[in-house]
Amino acid sequence: MRNNRYIVIVGCGRLGSHLANHLSRAGNLVVVIDRDEPTFNDLSPDFSGFRVHGDATQMAVLREAKVKNADVLIATTHEDNVNLMVAQVARGIFSVPHVLARVFDPKREEVYAQLGIDTICPTSVAAEMFLRAVADGAAEREGTPS
Amino acid sequence: MRNNRYIVIVGCGRLGSHLANHLSRAGNLVVVIDRDEPTFNDLSPDFSGFRVHGDATQMAVLREAKVKNADVLIATTHEDNVNLMVAQVARGIFSVPHVLARVFDPKREEVYAQLGIDTICPTSVAAEMFLRAVADGAAEREGTPS
Repeated sequence: MRNNRYIVIVGCGRLGSHLANHLSRAGNLVVVIDRDEPTFNDLSPDFSGFRVHGDATQMAVLREAKVKNADVLIATTHEDNVNLMVAQVARGIFSVPHVLARVFDPKREEVYAQLGIDTICPTSVAAEMFLRAVADGAAEREGTPS
Repeated sequence: MRNNRYIVIVGCGRLGSHLANHLSRAGNLVVVIDRDEPTFNDLSPDFSGFRVHGDATQMAVLREAKVKNADVLIATTHEDNVNLMVAQVARGIFSVPHVLARVFDPKREEVYAQLGIDTICPTSVAAEMFLRAVADGAAEREGTPS
């Protein structure tokens, strides 16, 4: 896999900053957008990308981040509506080839799929892992294979 | 796996209510604790367990939920400190055999492990899935196997 892609990350919270640090370290050109400047402090000292301070639901901010050149855009904010709107604009207006979004409400995943946006729902993923851990724990305690 | 266990779930947000509905439907006796009563509305109509309205960091509330009889306790609130405290009390004072907690800050996972508490960090899990999706997308676009 080529690691010199142009990747825009919307939201610099725990998830956004983790992805930004990792993808920057892997050799990609990463731009992080957040409307809350102090969140940029979570970027590691060796983060070599750019920070754009602003509200990603505004076209001017997306233009400043040069979203039209992006190979990948990842919407990671804590608000499903913001992620949906930004992802939709990235796909529909800026024709970003690969758009991914965090979605908190699993009921919204279908809407995203119809728009050609990949989604990851941390709640569903965590729920599955908890259910598996509970089942494994029960199996272990009964001495049956999990 | 035996499905008639006594399971206490702390926090009835998206994750807690999802787990409660699923585990109740599977035949377990489930008790959900939340300090915010309207969250119980997320429990499905066929949820057959109990609701305890109160702050799970208070012993009286854990006693009301009969935590000492629990086979499993899952701490799912949005606050790492609350989850850590409740999980610790469940393990140390009520001797619950299997205690699991959601943890937002991955740096805390080690503390939990030392206390014999299973943890799941939705941020780490989501980050891994995003990184895999980005890598798979790149591989697909280049026609190489992912």
